[in-house]
Parts: sequence; C-alpha cells; structure tokens
Amino acid sequence: MDSPDASLPHYLRIAGMLRQTLASGALRPGDRVISARKLAERERVSLPTALEALRSLEAQGLIVARPRSGYFVRQQAPVAALPPSRPSPHPMPVTMAGLARSLFSSADARLIPLGAALPDPAWLPAATLQRALQAAGRRLQAQGQSYSMPPGRAELRGPIAARAAQWGGRFGPDDLILTSGATQAVRLALRAVCQPGDVVAIERPAYFGTLLLLEDLGLKALEVATDPREGLLPQALAEALARHRPAAVLASPTVQNPLGASMPVERKRALVALLEQAGVPLIEDDVYGDLAGDGQRPPACKAFDGSGNVLYCSSVSKTLAPGWRIGWIAPGRFHAQVLKARLAGDWAGAPLLEAAVGEVLASGDYDRHLRRLKTRIQAAVQAVTARVEASFPPGTRISMPCEGFVLWVELPRQVNALEVHRRALELGIGVSPGQLFSPQADLPSHLRLNCANEPTPRLLGAVGQIGELCRELARSTAPA
Amino acid sequence: MDSPDASLPHYLRIAGMLRQTLASGALRPGDRVISARKLAERERVSLPTALEALRSLEAQGLIVARPRSGYFVRQQAPVAALPPSRPSPHPMPVTMAGLARSLFSSADARLIPLGAALPDPAWLPAATLQRALQAAGRRLQAQGQSYSMPPGRAELRGPIAARAAQWGGRFGPDDLILTSGATQAVRLALRAVCQPGDVVAIERPAYFGTLLLLEDLGLKALEVATDPREGLLPQALAEALARHRPAAVLASPTVQNPLGASMPVERKRALVALLEQAGVPLIEDDVYGDLAGDGQRPPACKAFDGSGNVLYCSSVSKTLAPGWRIGWIAPGRFHAQVLKARLAGDWAGAPLLEAAVGEVLASGDYDRHLRRLKTRIQAAVQAVTARVEASFPPGTRISMPCEGFVLWVELPRQVNALEVHRRALELGIGVSPGQLFSPQADLPSHLRLNCANEPTPRLLGAVGQIGELCRELARSTAPA
Repeated sequence: MDSPDASLPHYLRIAGMLRQTLASGALRPGDRVISARKLAERERVSLPTALEALRSLEAQGLIVARPRSGYFVRQQAPVAALPPSRPSPHPMPVTMAGLARSLFSSADARLIPLGAALPDPAWLPAATLQRALQAAGRRLQAQGQSYSMPPGRAELRGPIAARAAQWGGRFGPDDLILTSGATQAVRLALRAVCQPGDVVAIERPAYFGTLLLLEDLGLKALEVATDPREGLLPQALAEALARHRPAAVLASPTVQNPLGASMPVERKRALVALLEQAGVPLIEDDVYGDLAGDGQRPPACKAFDGSGNVLYCSSVSKTLAPGWRIGWIAPGRFHAQVLKARLAGDWAGAPLLEAAVGEVLASGDYDRHLRRLKTRIQAAVQAVTARVEASFPPGTRISMPCEGFVLWVELPRQVNALEVHRRALELGIGVSPGQLFSPQADLPSHLRLNCANEPTPRLLGAVGQIGELCRELARSTAPA
Repeated sequence: MDSPDASLPHYLRIAGMLRQTLASGALRPGDRVISARKLAERERVSLPTALEALRSLEAQGLIVARPRSGYFVRQQAPVAALPPSRPSPHPMPVTMAGLARSLFSSADARLIPLGAALPDPAWLPAATLQRALQAAGRRLQAQGQSYSMPPGRAELRGPIAARAAQWGGRFGPDDLILTSGATQAVRLALRAVCQPGDVVAIERPAYFGTLLLLEDLGLKALEVATDPREGLLPQALAEALARHRPAAVLASPTVQNPLGASMPVERKRALVALLEQAGVPLIEDDVYGDLAGDGQRPPACKAFDGSGNVLYCSSVSKTLAPGWRIGWIAPGRFHAQVLKARLAGDWAGAPLLEAAVGEVLASGDYDRHLRRLKTRIQAAVQAVTARVEASFPPGTRISMPCEGFVLWVELPRQVNALEVHRRALELGIGVSPGQLFSPQADLPSHLRLNCANEPTPRLLGAVGQIGELCRELARSTAPA
C-alpha cells in the first residue's frame, strides 16, 4: 500500500485510497461504495471534500453515481460518463424541424414508451385529479364551462406563487399569467423579447420543442456548451454573449432535458447577475424543476431575479397532468408584452381545469404525489441505467442524470441514431434520436431514453433489444 | 283604395296592398303581421313571392322581423334596419389591437354581460358535460391525463365528421385536426396560406378576434362590404379579388359575428366556385353555424368544396363549453401545412376533454341541448331587440339578426361608442364598441350587444340604461 502523500489535496489523497480498495477486488462491480457522509466521518474531512474524492473516481470511470442512492462500482465494461458538449460557435437557423415532424408522425401510443419524455400515466394521481375536477365543477357551477380570460383564474395563480415562494421564487399571484402548457409560455416569452431573425442562445443539446419554437418564430439558435451534470457552462455562455449578443438566453437550469443536469445554485445566481448586467433576458424553462432535490427542491434562477430580467416558465405537464395543458409564466419586467401576446392569439383558458389544478396544488396532495413519483422515477432510472450498462456496445457513454427521468446516451461514433430509431420502430419500441436535440440535427450518435415507466421485464427487455441493435450496428459499420 | 296594377311584379302588388292595410291602422305597432305562408295561400302566389313582399315592407321600415317568429308592425319611433357596410377600398394594417387590449383589461365577470359574445353559463349543459367527463375519465383511465398528439383523438374526430356529413360537409375524420378552440384553428389556417405582409380579405364589420390574429401575424386587412342579413356581398368580393388578389378570404358565411347574417346557400356555392377559380383559399369560420336554422342547420361553404380550397374552422365554444378550448379544422388541400403549424407550436391536446366532447356530440344530448339553446336565444334576442327599440335614440338602426345571439346597433352619428362603453362600465354594464370591429377602429357609432343571457328585469333594465345613455349623448353632442 502506498503511503498517502501529505502534500496532496485531501480529496486526491482520499481518492487514491479508495482506488486501491477498488483495485484490491474487495468490492465487486455493482457493489455500493462508501457514502460521502461516512467517508467524511472516517477520514475526518468535510462532506464537500469527501464528495470531491468520490467525484474524481467517477470521472475516472471507476464508480458510477445512481440518483439519490450513492456511488457503485462500475460494471466490467464501463459505460463512461459524457464529456461536455461541443457546439458550433456560430448562430444557425433551425433545420431539424422537418425531421422532427416526420418522426412525430410515426409516434404511436402502442410503442414501448422509451421515446417521449412523459411519466407513466399510471404514475399520475388520476383519482386525485378526478376528485379535484368534481370539486371545481361543483364550486364553479356554470362558470366552469365559460372562458378564463388572461391572466387566468386567481385560485390557481395563488397556489403557484405560494409554492414558488418555498424555493425563493420572486413573484406573486399578480405577476403570473396562466398559459396552455409551458410550450405556450416559452412561445410567449420568445415573442415578448425577440424579433424574427434574432439570435437566441440555447443549451447543446436542447429540448426539441424549444428548437421547433425557434424555427416557427424565425429565430436563430446559438448553441452553448453544457456539462452533462452541471448544465450550462458559465464561461462558454459569457463568451457566446460577448461574441454574438443574443436577444435572449433560453435554458433549463434545473433538470435539463435531455441531460438531466442542474446548475449548482451559485452558478444560477451568477447566471442571473451576468445576464442582468448584459441586459439579455433569461427565459427559464423549469418544467422539470419540481423533480429536483430529495426534499425541498432547489431554487430556480428566478429566485435571484431582482430586476425582472427572468421570464420564468413552468407547467404541471411533467408531474401531474400532461394532457390538461396548464402552464404559466412569471415574465418579470416583460409582463405587459407577454400579456399582449397572450391576448392576441388563443386568449381563453379552461377555468375548470385551472381551478382543479389549483385545488391539487393548494392541498397536500401534490407534495405527497411528488414524493411517490420521485421514488418511482429513481428506481426506474436505476433499472434502465443498469440495463444500458449491461447491454449497450463498448464505447457507449451516458449522462448519469442527477435528476429527472431521461437518459442521454452517446453511442459509438459509427452508430447512427436515426437508424436505431427506424429499427426500434419495427420492434415496436419508441426512442428519441439525438438528431432531434440540435438545430441542425448534428448529434447523430446520441439517443434519449425515457425512463419514467414501470421497469417491467417487457420494458427492460426493450432496453436490452435497443442495446443489441446498437451492438449490431456498431459491428456492421465498424471500420474494417 | 287604389286598384292594383297588373303590370307590377306580384310581390310589389302584394306589398302595396299590405302597406295600405298598415296605413289603415287596422294593426297597431307591435302587432303580428300575416305570415308568409298564409299570405301565399291567400294571394295564390309562391312562398318566395310572399316572402319578397314582406321583405320589401321591412326594407321600408314598416315591419320588423323577429327571429323565427315572423313579422311585426314597427314601433312608433321605428328603429331602421342597417344598410350594407361601406369599407375602404384599400388593404390596411390592423391598428385597433391596442384599443382591444385596453378594453379586455377592463373585462370583469361581474359586469352585466352585454359585452362578450358568450352564452349564459347557466344555459350550458353542465350536468351532461360533467357526466361525459366522468365517463371519459373511466374509459381512458390514466391515458386521460396524458397528451393527445395531433391530429387529436379519433373518438372526437369521428362524431365531428359525422355531424358535418348531415349538412353536406365534405370531410372525414382523417381530414380533421383538433385544435385549442377555433381561434387556434383560424391562426393555423392563416399560417398555412399567408406570409407576413400578405393581404387577407375580411368582412366589414369583422369579429375582433380575427383582427387581432391578423395584427399578430403581420397581415393586412382588406375589408369587403356585407349586407346585414345576407353577409358578404358577392359583387364586392369579386371586385376586391380583381383589384388586390388577397392571399386568402377569411369569412363567417353562416351567422356572422357581429351581424348575425348568413349568406343564402346559392351564394355560398358561388363563393366557393369563385375562390376556387381564382385560386384564393377560403378560411371559413363556422363557430356559430350550429345556431343556424330551425331544424337541420344550413350547409357551410365547406359543403361545396370539391377541390380542398376551403379551410373549415369550428369549435364547441359558442354552443357547449367555451372554456374547454376544443376546436377543429378541416384544412382541405392545406392539411400538411396546417399539421406542420400545429406540431410547431403548442402541439398537445387534452385527451380527457376531447373524449368527453366526443361523447356529447355522438349522443343525442348535443341536439337536444341545441334545440333548447336556440329557443332560449330566440326569446332573449326578441326581448333585447324590443328594449332597444323602446329605449334607444331616434336614428338608431339595428342588424335585425336572423340568427345567433348578438345585435349590431348603429347609433346616431354624433354618439361615440367608446364613450358609451366607458360610461356603461361605470354603471357596471359591459358592451362592445364598434371600434373593435374594423381594422382601424373606424366604426365609432356602432355597438354590439350580446343577447345570450336570461332576459331578466335586471338585464333588460341594463339595455334600457344603455339606451338612455345613448339618448343623453345624442342630445348633448347634437349640433346646435
């Protein structure tokens, strides 16, 4: 056993010790590694130092994190974590939309659902929602069938603002405008702060719904590099701002889709300050935010917005009722513009659904449901991750998401994700090819897998089939 | 008594006889005039000839039609029927939108509802809708909370197509795309056939929602003259097409808002043929169509569309459930473009609501409800019309709507409708000023009154208050 070098930083010293333990074979692949807390106690260091040690082993591909469960020894053929993304330095028009539409048209509810990022319908609180609908129906009586005019019903805006106050959200009920899902919220935000032809800075990879909106509004995309665990990279964003002065930044700082990455809280604070100083509005898509954290969720960027420069968008589509199309925006200093855009188009909301969601958010039901949902997601993500590790070809790298319910998988370079998608369809399995997640469809070797379904043998079998498919494609197209 | 001149057309001869009867004082103001059927029997002429005779008296302001009740002798101070509208011959940008938004922001559910064109919530079948929601919830189970992807759920597209087949609508379930209300349907239609800067031919006066959409999409409006009873005037449209070649015609040929006018069926057929020949798409807004006719409703223009040149848009917002935001479009040959636009923006629908509306449309409940609703509307329109006739200042002219539930009232020239609106608000009464119904707010002496509420003494009292207000404004601003 080497003697630990006292001149090393503590975390490297501890990491070295752990590496020796692993090398000794005392732990087998898949075994749980000591927790950061116990490691800190044992080594008499701070918790951050212990965590740093574990993370450095993870970066070396020796251990893997599983969301909210700790670290585990890597499988034999380690599936490595992803590196930061490498975007083009230039703004570009969105050209992936035609592809997206052709893929959507093949969407089929009977596919094994590894494609769309939606929670298992059976995981949503159908009985609670039905009860809330009935209660709202009784309370509103005939008004429930009428229009809800912007900004939307106060009995929903109230609970939204109250819940946001728990993570420090700086807005009240009167600052909120209800929308038809977060997609409309983001559309209104883009309408409020951009003109056609403008450049919008986005994450690489980005949610394809965002890209479709940019195409639809005639906006150019400027990709910014992300870290697969910590999201938008501050330095990359600062450089992009300096070079191109985009009209807005559109990002998901908490549980990014498809990465599952969340920016550390201090980076969020710095991001808000940077953009405020630059006079560039931040459109914050927080639809997955309630899935972050074990107990209280971490603050969104909106918590640090003193000047109204953040247009905060969210919905209940990822956690409660996708098909109810209930979203909202707290547009800060752009309130008048967003309200104008909301009134111009499809300006009426559904009072019955707004009131019913208000009932659920205001009661304890939503928090109870969220806890159950997060537990189920966690188990399913672990099960799918393990199956990916066991079945995908060597050279596969994976996002190791901290939170949320999608896996972002990088396949060996010679495997084309569109071909995987096509052949998966033939097997009755839906997957989302990487091409969908960049403006010009230039992520050809990535897949996004939705993990938010009961990890039945059928579902995990489908993950294995995708893995086998990728192995086959990797072999057949490998250079001779 | 003059001897009838045998060289006159029959209808003029009969009209002359009737005029003498009226002049004799045998009938008092408000008395019912002989029905067209009895007149035809008595005079041994065809029913159309008898009707023509009655209409010519109506045009002279001697008798008034009340929807589905026949003709009545005019009140002492006759409220004349409106002449055709007189639009500008040039396309123009929409500049009334700021005004519209400022008025919307003063909308208040507690106002006496003569403003917004919405049926009394108490007239909507709340229990039927609630039952349908529960049935759909049980049937869809967890799927009810998920997304409905375009083109939307088949169990709603089926009944919509089946109902349209009854009036000759030429489309099947697969031709339909469900939308978030008819407003979104019209928006998608405009997106599919126009580019920013294009000219769109519309009716004068036009529904302000249409004008807001044009402004929002950067389109110019070309107003076309309408007859207050028969809608879009074919000759005026033909001239507009020849002069300006608009990218599309957007019209409500059945129960136009605000006129209540419906084009005669043969004019609809000719309109479709004219536009097909000219290669100009027709965007048909049919949201009030189900309120037309006593029994079976008349055909929409879509019934005559052999080439797919008509983009047919409708919803259940005016008859069943405004707040459910369920609309649809049968886009004919523009199906691919509309589906593209639907997928680009807010692409998810609400499966629970779609399925529930499908249940209601497929059952006999909708027809039973429509019959009751039409009877209520008819009585309310008569009551409000009578109160307008009794209380508005001399010189007032009125649309005498055949169908639908709004009255379009022309005030004496010196009365400004915005001032009426402002002072009505102070009295707790909502009205829609004429300024909202033309692109450049140049209908300053018109009011639209919503009649679709129980004609309680309070409601009719409010109509009387508006009349008194108008009288006062007419006096105070009259030339000395």
